[in-house]
Amino acid sequence: MTREESLLARRQRLMGGAYRLFYGRPLHIVRGEGVWLFDAAGRRYLDAYNNVPHVGHCHPRVVEAICTQAAALNTHTRYLHEGVLDYAEMLLSRFPPGLEIAMFTCTGSEANELALRIARLATDRPGIIAVENGYHGNTWLTAQISDEEPGEPREDRIAIVPCPDTFRGTCRGPDAGARYAQAVAQAADRLRERGYPPGAFIMDTVLSSNGLPDIPADWLPEVVAVVRAAGAVFIADEVQPGFGRMGGHFWGFERLGVVPDIVTMGKPMANGHPAAAVVTSQDLVDGFGARASYFNTFGGNPVSCAAARAVLEVLDEERLPENAREVGQYLRAGLEALAERHAAIGDIRGSGLFQGVDLVSDRATRAPAGKLAQAVHNGMRDRGVLIGTIGAHDNVLKIRPPMVFSREHADLLLACLDEALAN
Amino acid sequence: MTREESLLARRQRLMGGAYRLFYGRPLHIVRGEGVWLFDAAGRRYLDAYNNVPHVGHCHPRVVEAICTQAAALNTHTRYLHEGVLDYAEMLLSRFPPGLEIAMFTCTGSEANELALRIARLATDRPGIIAVENGYHGNTWLTAQISDEEPGEPREDRIAIVPCPDTFRGTCRGPDAGARYAQAVAQAADRLRERGYPPGAFIMDTVLSSNGLPDIPADWLPEVVAVVRAAGAVFIADEVQPGFGRMGGHFWGFERLGVVPDIVTMGKPMANGHPAAAVVTSQDLVDGFGARASYFNTFGGNPVSCAAARAVLEVLDEERLPENAREVGQYLRAGLEALAERHAAIGDIRGSGLFQGVDLVSDRATRAPAGKLAQAVHNGMRDRGVLIGTIGAHDNVLKIRPPMVFSREHADLLLACLDEALAN
Repeated sequence: MTREESLLARRQRLMGGAYRLFYGRPLHIVRGEGVWLFDAAGRRYLDAYNNVPHVGHCHPRVVEAICTQAAALNTHTRYLHEGVLDYAEMLLSRFPPGLEIAMFTCTGSEANELALRIARLATDRPGIIAVENGYHGNTWLTAQISDEEPGEPREDRIAIVPCPDTFRGTCRGPDAGARYAQAVAQAADRLRERGYPPGAFIMDTVLSSNGLPDIPADWLPEVVAVVRAAGAVFIADEVQPGFGRMGGHFWGFERLGVVPDIVTMGKPMANGHPAAAVVTSQDLVDGFGARASYFNTFGGNPVSCAAARAVLEVLDEERLPENAREVGQYLRAGLEALAERHAAIGDIRGSGLFQGVDLVSDRATRAPAGKLAQAVHNGMRDRGVLIGTIGAHDNVLKIRPPMVFSREHADLLLACLDEALAN
Repeated sequence: MTREESLLARRQRLMGGAYRLFYGRPLHIVRGEGVWLFDAAGRRYLDAYNNVPHVGHCHPRVVEAICTQAAALNTHTRYLHEGVLDYAEMLLSRFPPGLEIAMFTCTGSEANELALRIARLATDRPGIIAVENGYHGNTWLTAQISDEEPGEPREDRIAIVPCPDTFRGTCRGPDAGARYAQAVAQAADRLRERGYPPGAFIMDTVLSSNGLPDIPADWLPEVVAVVRAAGAVFIADEVQPGFGRMGGHFWGFERLGVVPDIVTMGKPMANGHPAAAVVTSQDLVDGFGARASYFNTFGGNPVSCAAARAVLEVLDEERLPENAREVGQYLRAGLEALAERHAAIGDIRGSGLFQGVDLVSDRATRAPAGKLAQAVHNGMRDRGVLIGTIGAHDNVLKIRPPMVFSREHADLLLACLDEALAN
């Protein structure tokens, strides 16, 4: 029995059968540094998948912030602490006016839960509209609005609208935005008919689980107008696109020409230390606070805030959003060059350091090539580069590295992708 | 404007009105060590309230474990890692047979969410029975089964049973267990009539929000027999009593003569680093895993597991569960001595390092003295000792210090409580 086989057997015995691992032969990672992960045998992998270690695995500034604060104090938000206020101020300065209050949770699931509770209590409307094939978390309610194996039958107060897929779907043409807004209006009508007037429309602002579809410029403003006319609020799930990943804009919603009512964020916020947040308006918090109070034992604790603050400081000092834009453009050009030689590349989407490569078995029909994507995913791993796959057909290569990804790293990824596609 | 007033104004502006602070004049804590907290003016407070820093504020072993692992690697459970397996093995060794699988979350709310999803999918029954005035979390579903200002109207699939209050309530006499089991059976019937057959009965095994009522020995076994006969599982919420706090037993359920189907834990697990878990049987995980998969981005990450492992090691090496029993008995004797001189002490409950002092305005009627409890709470703070208040009438002094609380600390607390009650 190899060491990995023995770990797998222990894992099955101790953690059971509901967990999933990446890859046919799972990786046994023991160390991380910048864009690199190292397995137990000392092999190095270029990490072009993990967005959680946002400023790079084990960034010394973040590690130092965690160590220093963990040695001094770790309490909660029922005492006054400057760390949480300093971080709230830094974070809110990245938002347009109106998005002025920060509330802290530990995970993106909890942030979406809090956002949905705020929407529910502030609007007094229980209905929720979400986009098909989305992912918003692993709790009961967030699983209800996610399509990744929720398992449970969906509640009547939830309506799902199709994903605005501009590559394969119907969301094309000059009136795509208006037609889509109509679909959302119909979903709102369905909820009202069932006795659940809509209080929230929630969307990942890069639709990452849907394979990063390109969204027409007029699309979201029209949808949000319909949502607000129905008495609901727009919750922008920024867990994936937030913190400068897309290059050019710090938040995903900024690319789409809309200011949300509530914003949720998570994964990259503290470089892997469990931290997440909700940002919203005074009015909505007042509406919520009139009917409920909020406390999260670990949310907004001094150590989490120190780690999150270090992330914002490193993003600024190392100019990582700019790096995401520049290296993202370079990577995009490289992918487009590959597309000239590999007919399997049907489309390239995304921006900054979140790129999706849509693999097809036929460019004319755009038939998704899910099996090929899995083969390329495993082939890249064999060549020492970690990527993922996304999309309803799992045929979109997901390239989403730490923000310290450079041109040299992009060159290595492109060379390996060239080989893996040629195989 | 004092420094605290300025922090309060910033907090209101940046974090809004749904958060609550402790005390009329909130504390501004900047440093912690063992059982001590220090405010910005350098004043020292004996912490007899916080259970999250379980082995003491900033325990060097836990801080070192966090720093070492954060500098080496922090990823997730989709790669193999020995740290999570070693911790799962250590944790599961503290459970009786049948509680054999560990799944990881970041917070107690998430642990209860996962437990309820496992129960829902494995039993295929949507109904939930919970105890009145309980607290199980801040997400939608956990707020639905909590009485602390949930704000939202309660869903039809939830039934609440009264708390088995042996001091003021009806849960007294030799047949108390049987009568209570009947109340649970009636709740199960109500759920079935509404079309939601019960899949879960959830209870904090020390009923902490209810003021630590003494539970008759036969109570829980009879209730759980009814729960299982109805096709539901028993979820023991060990977020408060777990990890040796009650002295004598490592888990709250062990005091009550029942082996749960699912156990949830959180707060003290990693001494304040966000970590929590669900422990259950292979069968229930298989039933869940057949219909859903599970992943939690930060749950079970190497740093959280290193911190949690250090907590278990310190508990063993410093014999802290034994300390909880010994110092708990000493503290209890001191509280009983105070009761001889202070008629306001109506009852003393709990065990180990979780004691509740029920204040009354009249020992004969047992009328709860909520205002007095608040005055004592604030009076203790003025004397440099932090405690809390709990119970449906908020009249029970909550004494729940870090596990490194000694006899000397107990003496200081008792002396201050004597003064505060005399005032």
